[in-house]
Amino acid sequence: MTFQVYDTTLRDGAQREGLSYSVVDKLAVARLLDEFGVGFIEGGWPGAVPKDTEFFRRARTELDLKHAVLVAFGATRRAGAVAADDPQVRGLLDAQTPAIALVAKADLRHVERALRTTAKENLAMIHDTVTHLVAEGRRVFVDGEHTFDGYRHDPGYTASVVETALAAGAERFVLCDTNGGMLPSQVTRAIVDLTDRIGVAPELLGMHAQNDTACAVANTIAAVEAGVRHVQGTANGYGERPGNADLFAIVANLQLKLGLPVLPEGCLEQMVRVSHAIAEIANIAPDTHQAYAGAAAFAHKAGLHASAIKVDPLLYNHIEPEVVGNDMRILVTEMAGRASIELKSRELGLDLAGHPETLSRVTNRVKELEAGGWSFEAADASFELLVRGELPDAAPVRPFALESYRVLVEHREDGAVVSEATVKIRVRGERLIATAEGNGPVNALDEALRVGLGRHYPELRDFELADYKVRILEGSHGTGAVTRVLVETADGRGGGWTTVGVHPNVVEASWHALVDALTFGLDRGLRHRV
Amino acid sequence: MTFQVYDTTLRDGAQREGLSYSVVDKLAVARLLDEFGVGFIEGGWPGAVPKDTEFFRRARTELDLKHAVLVAFGATRRAGAVAADDPQVRGLLDAQTPAIALVAKADLRHVERALRTTAKENLAMIHDTVTHLVAEGRRVFVDGEHTFDGYRHDPGYTASVVETALAAGAERFVLCDTNGGMLPSQVTRAIVDLTDRIGVAPELLGMHAQNDTACAVANTIAAVEAGVRHVQGTANGYGERPGNADLFAIVANLQLKLGLPVLPEGCLEQMVRVSHAIAEIANIAPDTHQAYAGAAAFAHKAGLHASAIKVDPLLYNHIEPEVVGNDMRILVTEMAGRASIELKSRELGLDLAGHPETLSRVTNRVKELEAGGWSFEAADASFELLVRGELPDAAPVRPFALESYRVLVEHREDGAVVSEATVKIRVRGERLIATAEGNGPVNALDEALRVGLGRHYPELRDFELADYKVRILEGSHGTGAVTRVLVETADGRGGGWTTVGVHPNVVEASWHALVDALTFGLDRGLRHRV
Repeated sequence: MTFQVYDTTLRDGAQREGLSYSVVDKLAVARLLDEFGVGFIEGGWPGAVPKDTEFFRRARTELDLKHAVLVAFGATRRAGAVAADDPQVRGLLDAQTPAIALVAKADLRHVERALRTTAKENLAMIHDTVTHLVAEGRRVFVDGEHTFDGYRHDPGYTASVVETALAAGAERFVLCDTNGGMLPSQVTRAIVDLTDRIGVAPELLGMHAQNDTACAVANTIAAVEAGVRHVQGTANGYGERPGNADLFAIVANLQLKLGLPVLPEGCLEQMVRVSHAIAEIANIAPDTHQAYAGAAAFAHKAGLHASAIKVDPLLYNHIEPEVVGNDMRILVTEMAGRASIELKSRELGLDLAGHPETLSRVTNRVKELEAGGWSFEAADASFELLVRGELPDAAPVRPFALESYRVLVEHREDGAVVSEATVKIRVRGERLIATAEGNGPVNALDEALRVGLGRHYPELRDFELADYKVRILEGSHGTGAVTRVLVETADGRGGGWTTVGVHPNVVEASWHALVDALTFGLDRGLRHRV
Repeated sequence: MTFQVYDTTLRDGAQREGLSYSVVDKLAVARLLDEFGVGFIEGGWPGAVPKDTEFFRRARTELDLKHAVLVAFGATRRAGAVAADDPQVRGLLDAQTPAIALVAKADLRHVERALRTTAKENLAMIHDTVTHLVAEGRRVFVDGEHTFDGYRHDPGYTASVVETALAAGAERFVLCDTNGGMLPSQVTRAIVDLTDRIGVAPELLGMHAQNDTACAVANTIAAVEAGVRHVQGTANGYGERPGNADLFAIVANLQLKLGLPVLPEGCLEQMVRVSHAIAEIANIAPDTHQAYAGAAAFAHKAGLHASAIKVDPLLYNHIEPEVVGNDMRILVTEMAGRASIELKSRELGLDLAGHPETLSRVTNRVKELEAGGWSFEAADASFELLVRGELPDAAPVRPFALESYRVLVEHREDGAVVSEATVKIRVRGERLIATAEGNGPVNALDEALRVGLGRHYPELRDFELADYKVRILEGSHGTGAVTRVLVETADGRGGGWTTVGVHPNVVEASWHALVDALTFGLDRGLRHRV
């Protein structure tokens, strides 16, 4: 039976405090998860959450998934209703996904006290909804909410929930440790006991763990060792309370420690890139101490080991960091980061392998900028401009030079809020002054720049500022806080690029990112024309 | 045999990247760990690290430990030397601690390739050093570096290391997963196999886990389930690479999940306080998503859960949060309904249970605002102002009325970037105009507002803008994108509050959050004065 890696970053992971994805964010995260090679992407609850309905609608035309199947998440039919007539159930079908995940109560106490229905009706709700969705041609997963707590309380009832779901045609019954209170040995015992009791193959079960005992990853591994062949997790362990099981650590442990090849070839080494890019989209600082994916995951501080590491790095690393796309770091050496910079440049079509000096220059420049708060993880276009700036034959064409700009924001007596920007620039020897309004200071600057450049570069009209993210970073080494801005530009043909700017002043940081965005787009156009 | 909770925050934990304790910091951390009730505090490497030598010297007069024994950490004697003459060994005795921990090589590859000595000499080094220290009246622990990797490579040699240490008089042999690559089932198998092989009682072994597979806590629990009665960890899991096993999660799991009373009575509920205080001393932002101790460890977002939580909080919490000194929190989000809002209001001391109409008005207003991009889950102060605005008796006092403001950002020809703001406001009947500069537009506005309000509200001087977060949200239903700003204000006495503002213009959104921040702080001051 195929091993199923099932991601719920966009549904259960979105329960993390402070996290709120836009539809565009969700589409971008889904693309990244697909690049990481997961088999299933649970996208949200269509019908119940308007943003999720919209996500599934746009996914049909805007997502071209290579590895993953999209899954709509929802609940079993209401008590007393007919599945086919239940609007919530219809919402799931309307999402037009190949697969649907249904949450079902697996703990009798929750059936009676939270759902306020009977033990029998709960089973009927599961049976009817699964049967209906299967008849409509869907693959169905059933998430047993509070399976473990329920099984401890009343094993007979919880077992009957599992049997009902599978008998009705569910592809997997997922054991959910909803409150996250389990330990690995308890997971093992529960699965062995349950499978013995009802004679079900553990391959028909899945595992969904929460991290309330700091054992979510271990609980998931324990389930796999007990025969489960479907694991659920979220990128970077995002989720409610302490979070869900970190899918990256789960997958790395399965592949590298248990020898189970659960991802397609070539995907595991995307981990660090995908992990950090999703963190940027979620606007959460990446956890530098995350297992496998963290920037410090293979960082060695102890001088004690320095010479031994030179003898054999594997004496002091539990795996080769490159296998998950990470790097070993020992103090601040020139070696650090080279591998990932070379890899990333190659990805962008720039071969630095034969240019060790250029690679060193770029690595040093990146280190220097990152020490000042820059981050290129999610800003490929700025990174490409930086690398190409170090290659004499590939240096990008700068479309203009700045003399000065001025931005004004007014909240007037009548309550109107207006933004206005003026730029003074030189384009191909000509000095230009342009003024424009916008719905905010950055938009006004962008508009003024476009007015100024428009006559020389009419193709600018196709570029659109698609997204704009701001993060305030604490200063290090006594400097003040700085602002990091990410600007995503759409090229009007379904493509786009992301640029970054950093400065203590948010407007100046935005200006850097805007200039990189226009430079990248115009330069790319020029090169493609040649 | 007594269970030993052994903390190494001050030694192995200090290997965390970016962490550096002063001697005063170390003394403060030791006091906190003692209040948490750990049995042993490993303070550092006297003799080798001057700061640690100083720590042990001052600890003799400045630390009055109720529960813990202080431990000096060091290495076995050098190859070819006599233990009594080895200056490093003498340094350990000079620290005058009741106990000493010795690191010893337990992996033959490390003996030969890193230590560059023979298998036999390594055993002699362990034997001689332990014997010498025991003869000097010390309790001795031996940390077997790379025990698990070594045991996998050459079980016979690693077993002889364990036997040598215990035979020489070591109180415990600590199995160290130095590279952190183990999974719980592998830990169990190794301990069972080792104890079978040499006939040693597992009670004579200890466990020291690193978190490279995200399983450090689970690996430690697995060792205890295999009979080990000595666990090592660090506060908040600080340590090299992804860190050490989090001692807080280990202890909570042992006490609350396995029923082992490993801490003195009354200590477990100190966890959250101790965890956060140590984070402050380490100058690391507390991990809000840490199991048990994190601010979000018992925070519930989903409306689905909130209605059931009213029925019985334990249906949705794996333990009672108070047991570890934590609190349950309800987050108000787009998914939330009346139940969440009622619970959240009660948390803030506002009882809406008897006011169903007010509750409906607040719920509708929250939903309406959240549809427009507002989010109250991280902005308790704005939420409180909103609820109190609907309660006639509790409406907050507005400190001023805005006439207009103007903000200017300039990038001048010389490259300088300047921000300036002017506000025109009415305060207690007086019209005021104030101008100030700042390092960005929002800082300039904040400064101008403080200049204008300062004479009427001198207490403003204590409020400080502590953090500022910006998020651009896609518009829904055809409206344009909006900007959401979160402002965190510190009251200068260790407390603080968070407010939110939303508007298409980032400056206006920031203005809303700033005004809420000042209103909340000033109003709270007025009410407390009454």
